Amino acid sequence: MSEILSFIESNKDRYESELKEFLRIPSISTSPEHNGETRRCAEWVADELKRIGLNNVQIMETAGHPVVYGERLDGGKDAATVLFYGHYDVQPVDPLNLWTNPPFEPTIIGDNIYARGSVDDKGQVLMQLKAIEAHLRVSGAMPVNVKVIIEGEEEIGSPNLDKFLSDNKALLKCDTVLVSDTPMFGYDQPSLCYGLRGLCYMQVEVTGPNRDLHSGFFGGAVENPINALAVMISKLKDENGLILIDGFYDNVTPLSEIERKEFARLPFDQKAFINDLETDASPGEEGYTELERMWARPTLDCNGIWGGFTGEGAKTVLPSKAYAKISMRLVPNQTPDEIAKKFEAYFNKIKPAGITLKIIDLHGGMPAATPIDSDGMNAARKALKQVFGKEPFLTREGGSIPIVNSFTTILGAPTVLMGFGLPDQNAHSPNEKMNLNNFHRGVKCGALFYENLKK
Amino acid sequence: MSEILSFIESNKDRYESELKEFLRIPSISTSPEHNGETRRCAEWVADELKRIGLNNVQIMETAGHPVVYGERLDGGKDAATVLFYGHYDVQPVDPLNLWTNPPFEPTIIGDNIYARGSVDDKGQVLMQLKAIEAHLRVSGAMPVNVKVIIEGEEEIGSPNLDKFLSDNKALLKCDTVLVSDTPMFGYDQPSLCYGLRGLCYMQVEVTGPNRDLHSGFFGGAVENPINALAVMISKLKDENGLILIDGFYDNVTPLSEIERKEFARLPFDQKAFINDLETDASPGEEGYTELERMWARPTLDCNGIWGGFTGEGAKTVLPSKAYAKISMRLVPNQTPDEIAKKFEAYFNKIKPAGITLKIIDLHGGMPAATPIDSDGMNAARKALKQVFGKEPFLTREGGSIPIVNSFTTILGAPTVLMGFGLPDQNAHSPNEKMNLNNFHRGVKCGALFYENLKK
Repeated sequence: MSEILSFIESNKDRYESELKEFLRIPSISTSPEHNGETRRCAEWVADELKRIGLNNVQIMETAGHPVVYGERLDGGKDAATVLFYGHYDVQPVDPLNLWTNPPFEPTIIGDNIYARGSVDDKGQVLMQLKAIEAHLRVSGAMPVNVKVIIEGEEEIGSPNLDKFLSDNKALLKCDTVLVSDTPMFGYDQPSLCYGLRGLCYMQVEVTGPNRDLHSGFFGGAVENPINALAVMISKLKDENGLILIDGFYDNVTPLSEIERKEFARLPFDQKAFINDLETDASPGEEGYTELERMWARPTLDCNGIWGGFTGEGAKTVLPSKAYAKISMRLVPNQTPDEIAKKFEAYFNKIKPAGITLKIIDLHGGMPAATPIDSDGMNAARKALKQVFGKEPFLTREGGSIPIVNSFTTILGAPTVLMGFGLPDQNAHSPNEKMNLNNFHRGVKCGALFYENLKK
Repeated sequence: MSEILSFIESNKDRYESELKEFLRIPSISTSPEHNGETRRCAEWVADELKRIGLNNVQIMETAGHPVVYGERLDGGKDAATVLFYGHYDVQPVDPLNLWTNPPFEPTIIGDNIYARGSVDDKGQVLMQLKAIEAHLRVSGAMPVNVKVIIEGEEEIGSPNLDKFLSDNKALLKCDTVLVSDTPMFGYDQPSLCYGLRGLCYMQVEVTGPNRDLHSGFFGGAVENPINALAVMISKLKDENGLILIDGFYDNVTPLSEIERKEFARLPFDQKAFINDLETDASPGEEGYTELERMWARPTLDCNGIWGGFTGEGAKTVLPSKAYAKISMRLVPNQTPDEIAKKFEAYFNKIKPAGITLKIIDLHGGMPAATPIDSDGMNAARKALKQVFGKEPFLTREGGSIPIVNSFTTILGAPTVLMGFGLPDQNAHSPNEKMNLNNFHRGVKCGALFYENLKK
């Protein structure tokens, strides 16, 4: 293994020049004008998979941009099989005028390489490919079986990935999925994300009178839909931040003592957190820390509200309708369907006289969690410790990565989220960057991950 | 007098075509883009005052839209002097898509004319001008002295009228003010309004974090300004409709037993009321009837609310800001300034941690009441009985006509509110309409009012 790590150490310059080549291709998946470039990027990835020594490399068509596949089944029947997933498509670049350097002319300044896709996700894809390459160049074989899929539609919500996974279940059969597309907790703070929240996103329409009324003539004998909506929203949570929807917490997997200890170990700076948001408090469900609340407890937030007169000045209208978008972040073992039904039942229960309700289930996503003592997690923890010289933090994330749930439900495999981004990486924003030290450490971690998985 | 009434009867078609001309001018006083049209409307009114035979007609400038003045002092020193007040400006028209016919293309369907301003207040202004015209055309003189002011800022709270009244106290000296800007209790139910509610109209801006956040990453440790605003709104009233602002009821003049008996005599049909609004209840402050609540008790209504994502679909934003327009209807002896201060103090008191508040006092109007045995009231009661063939009801009204209070305090004259609108007239809403039978009866009542005032 030390030979492999030396190989990696001595190839840094080459990695950086290959990364620049990858980053120069403007593979903006949402932009039809860039379809040619996105296709060219898929071809570049296919060539790269062949270059590093993968077999059976294919550009596999979907209804949208293709998935690039490659494999190396050196490990044999008894060895673990890892499916590495990444994406070669990138976000749009506007507002272009806020970029210091052109987004598709990768520029190294200090420890960072700046370019669209540098961290999300081309840099992290390439580091994993370089990890495989190192094994194959030095020892001629992978210690376990490896399959690779690099898709081209992650930035538009992976609309064709579920079908691709279902259609190619046998080809993609694996024990562990490896994804490098998340940030670390901080620089020199290696972390492994093992849990993601799900989502249940509802829209409510509250109707009072059948038309807008004069608030002077009618005020006092008509239910006002805005007031009614406000009262109903106020009844969704109590003063301690507990969600009051009947049965809401029934299926919530509670945080274990181990998890709470792990989170407590993290250098979360509450003061810096609220200062950055220019607020004076970080309230939430009583009895839990900020990280616990943002990562591992279900929450409820209004995402939008509107109704009545919203222009300049004073219009004395008692409106007919008011609307709100209300979403709930879910944790294992809740499901969006279950929560949507409970939300609807509760909202109807607290509805006052004088109004009618229309409730729409706009969108849902399953929560996900990977067992922290799985083989994949253990291999990743060990790899991070070997490279960074410290035990990685075990973290969760408050957002959703819908493909992780697809891997669980379609392929039946847990996902290891071993990411090397940083919180200030500007993913999706101008001046996206990847820390090159993290890139090179990532190559080593990838190489060690496969070694650690060997039985 | 019978000749005058015949003249009115035979000029209906002309009145309607003149009304259409008046209604075609989009004199939306709150909209700077309509300043040209609002000015054109003032000029139209001045021309009309000359056409009907008034003297000393002037477009009198203010800091905002002008007041149009005219007079006819035929009655001499010993006769009563009536000041007729109306307004030529109208409310905005949004939501435009709910109008069946364009708001400034007056359309007669059945007995109604549909247009913005048809009943509030252009239709009622024109009927009073036609009443004066009938006297002058038939007998060449008015039975009493008449002064007319038609202003252009009623729908934005008449910000310059008090100064105008003060600056022109001598010119406007009068015994009685006549206003036609209120609805009748119902069709064929003539009524005279002796009390109006005041208004205190506030806007609140609630700020949580300094920028829009991802609701997945941050949900659980940041105060959401929409949720916070909803909770604060829910704390403005209790479950029995009582307003919870500290000291809110301190100065409220209670309803007398006589008033409650008068109101109880009125044929208010609760079932028809809620059926018309297509709702199932007419909730409000416990212990009071609908009419008492709408006319003589203070109320609180949200007039508008907005914040976060209000477009199509599901955007998972935890917004930085949320806003609401919240107004309170006041009764004698409350004042807008007093209530604005109490609202602000209370809202700050119930503000949760993690948000900042900005509260703006957008607009205020004093409540008002007129003695029911004044000369003007007696002349109006008689006129209504003569035209409708029945004794009018004595009512109050839930809306505000802040200028009524100005007439009392600045000119020292009581105001007679002889209105000819109807409860379903859609003032301030799409498809505003005026019943044309009421329009023509209004012309006759106006003519008789002056006659009845003659000593």
